[in-house]
Amino acid sequence: MIKNMTEDQITLYIIKALKENRHKEFEAMIDELQPYDIAKIYEELPLKHKKRFLLYLNIDSLADLMQELTKEDQLDVLNKLGIEKSAKVLDEMDNDDLASLLDDLSPEKITILLSKMKKEESDIVQDIMNYPAETAGRLMTNRFVWIRDYYSTREAVAKLKTFADFAETINYLYVVDQNRQLVGVVSYRDLLMAEPTELIRNIMYERVISAHVETDQEEVARLIERYDFLAIPVVDEDKTLVGIITVDDVIDIVIKEANEDIEKLSASGKSIDFDTPAFVAAYRRLPWLILLLFIGLISGSIISGYEETLEKVVALAFFMPMIAGMTGNTGTQSLAVVVRGLVSNDIDKNVVSRLVLRETGVGILIGLTCGVLISIIAYVWRGDPILGLVVGASLLLTLIIGTLAGTVIPLILYRFNIDPAIASGPLITTLNDIFSLVTYFGIATMFIQYLM
Amino acid sequence: MIKNMTEDQITLYIIKALKENRHKEFEAMIDELQPYDIAKIYEELPLKHKKRFLLYLNIDSLADLMQELTKEDQLDVLNKLGIEKSAKVLDEMDNDDLASLLDDLSPEKITILLSKMKKEESDIVQDIMNYPAETAGRLMTNRFVWIRDYYSTREAVAKLKTFADFAETINYLYVVDQNRQLVGVVSYRDLLMAEPTELIRNIMYERVISAHVETDQEEVARLIERYDFLAIPVVDEDKTLVGIITVDDVIDIVIKEANEDIEKLSASGKSIDFDTPAFVAAYRRLPWLILLLFIGLISGSIISGYEETLEKVVALAFFMPMIAGMTGNTGTQSLAVVVRGLVSNDIDKNVVSRLVLRETGVGILIGLTCGVLISIIAYVWRGDPILGLVVGASLLLTLIIGTLAGTVIPLILYRFNIDPAIASGPLITTLNDIFSLVTYFGIATMFIQYLM
Repeated sequence: MIKNMTEDQITLYIIKALKENRHKEFEAMIDELQPYDIAKIYEELPLKHKKRFLLYLNIDSLADLMQELTKEDQLDVLNKLGIEKSAKVLDEMDNDDLASLLDDLSPEKITILLSKMKKEESDIVQDIMNYPAETAGRLMTNRFVWIRDYYSTREAVAKLKTFADFAETINYLYVVDQNRQLVGVVSYRDLLMAEPTELIRNIMYERVISAHVETDQEEVARLIERYDFLAIPVVDEDKTLVGIITVDDVIDIVIKEANEDIEKLSASGKSIDFDTPAFVAAYRRLPWLILLLFIGLISGSIISGYEETLEKVVALAFFMPMIAGMTGNTGTQSLAVVVRGLVSNDIDKNVVSRLVLRETGVGILIGLTCGVLISIIAYVWRGDPILGLVVGASLLLTLIIGTLAGTVIPLILYRFNIDPAIASGPLITTLNDIFSLVTYFGIATMFIQYLM
Repeated sequence: MIKNMTEDQITLYIIKALKENRHKEFEAMIDELQPYDIAKIYEELPLKHKKRFLLYLNIDSLADLMQELTKEDQLDVLNKLGIEKSAKVLDEMDNDDLASLLDDLSPEKITILLSKMKKEESDIVQDIMNYPAETAGRLMTNRFVWIRDYYSTREAVAKLKTFADFAETINYLYVVDQNRQLVGVVSYRDLLMAEPTELIRNIMYERVISAHVETDQEEVARLIERYDFLAIPVVDEDKTLVGIITVDDVIDIVIKEANEDIEKLSASGKSIDFDTPAFVAAYRRLPWLILLLFIGLISGSIISGYEETLEKVVALAFFMPMIAGMTGNTGTQSLAVVVRGLVSNDIDKNVVSRLVLRETGVGILIGLTCGVLISIIAYVWRGDPILGLVVGASLLLTLIIGTLAGTVIPLILYRFNIDPAIASGPLITTLNDIFSLVTYFGIATMFIQYLM
């Protein structure tokens, strides 16, 4: 029946079951749903039904639900459940999700919740919370199965069966020695195909790709992406296996990092989404805009330095926005190429010098094309060949400068370990405004006697 | 031994094995390496060793290697292997990788290779190549295990064991009826925990989340990301199960789509990376730049329409770049919020009107702050309160217009099924240049008698 029901029908069915106290039907329905769907239904449920909905869910389903909710909803659920039941739900949550939830609570609330949780679970989550944000340690879960290398295949399968419910992934079994140090990995597929009496040490891979607890999350994502893994083990300083990171967390990281790059490139400020209130969004966007306002005033003072030139040939002003704009555009293009290139390339001197050389070439090619084009247009429009020459030569030069600025500035920032995406499009554009105006008015002033 | 070797040591070891014809040692080493590592080594191998390297690899390893190489290297490997061996390798490759490889070959070459392949494999890849690019059909593989709902758990496990080597993922078994229509799914974990005599129909989920063959790849990625799946089944019009898509392909899609968004937002043109030659990069970037050049000239002709105003008060030119720049900046910020928001939000009238209202609010708040600030600065700098007022009022207005342009233009494009990221930062910036200059000179001309 359920397989042909639409989402709305399912929600109505659940509301009906809640109203009429039919716990059995409610549970049968929930059993067929994915955590994401349960969360969607919970979010859309009328407020008056939410409490009973939570009451009807068992601890496992509550833990699943929690992991799909936003921070606000998570806190709301904890409040509705009360401390005792909350602690039980937290026991069942993945440590990484739990750590990121606890992060936002008050210290008192954390202490109360942790004290009510199972000791082993609260110890683990506290360990995780000690790692720096955005590292492997912060993302890992302890819900994995480890085996020893003297196990037979049969023993390994038996252990896995016992822990299947607990483990986040059953694809890989990690092999540790007596000190819990990681020494190998066996895929479950290899176990299936091996003889039951075969020893693990004979079928395991010894060259295990692993992440260190302090490895940056972007690096972890790159490893999983390169190797097409479903999970990667995490080790600490003395190679002790402390957790695993699963591929679903990696997808979330990849999306988050890409969004952050775009936010920075557009200087749009952190975490503005469709639901951010206008006041908050404006507050987050303003710092960059005010900085750019002041940098923009530098352009103004440069032009005011050429007041005399401009008074003599007002037509020079007509080409100002085009020249400044084009310089900004080519800079933004180069910037985007560099910022995304840094994500997937390993950078050394060789790569940098090749890239700068390449972009110089691009700048010259683009500059020549656009410069010749605008010379002709300016000449035809204003009937003044010298004006055409001045505008064309300026555009040639500023396009080369703009292209290089968009390349070199992010590379320098990267060199000094500053996120290159901070050199946002607007920043590069505004800087290029200045470069281009100095060039343009400089050249125009040199030719001023021919222009009048 | 191998587990402590660096990458360079491994490469040297392999070169030595190749030189000294030690096939056994070569194979033992390859067995311990991941496909990605094998590909890295192959790429870095001196040319003279490459042929023997390929000769020493078995068909399975060659198929693994192929899947990690760039298009150029893949074609090179096929040439080195010759038609017969190539066909054997292609038989072992995942269909989705194979389809994208064949895409780039000449029709004659495709015909020859397909005719040498196993019939069932070549039929499947030809089917896949018939689906439009960037759809689920194009990404799916047929290497999955299906079962019937009357199987017992024991029978299902037995079938999985037989196919473990063949299947791309062993996490889910898809349940089909006599017409091969998808009717359920069982996770391997559930199989492990069920009684051996339990029937599949009693433990399977009936509400299977699936993708249609023509579902867009971004939508597939969203499904896998939401549900934290390791694979998703693909069905055709009559619900027949035709393939599965695995999570590793989804990560690649997510990265590719994010890069494409950034390319478009910065108008940097398709697929320019660190290795693109200058000439090609310039060629790909020029179309946008030339379009923007002409739009930029519109600004010029607008200013020339206000030549009289400008001749009277040259100081107006000083604030031109700042006003045009700021309008572009706020537009870029809004654009980024909208473009990334469209990736993860479902859009309806409600969402759109709330968003436009929000951005109007943001525009007013930003406009008031920056407008008041610049009024004061302009007054202090030029000693003219009316100039301050004109500049401030213009900035207030242009920031509201710019913010709305950055919001509304991508939404309109989206409404008409045009990719909103095409409304790149540079395009919005250049359009906003025009809006802002009209506003600025319009207001200045209104107040011209007070400005002189």
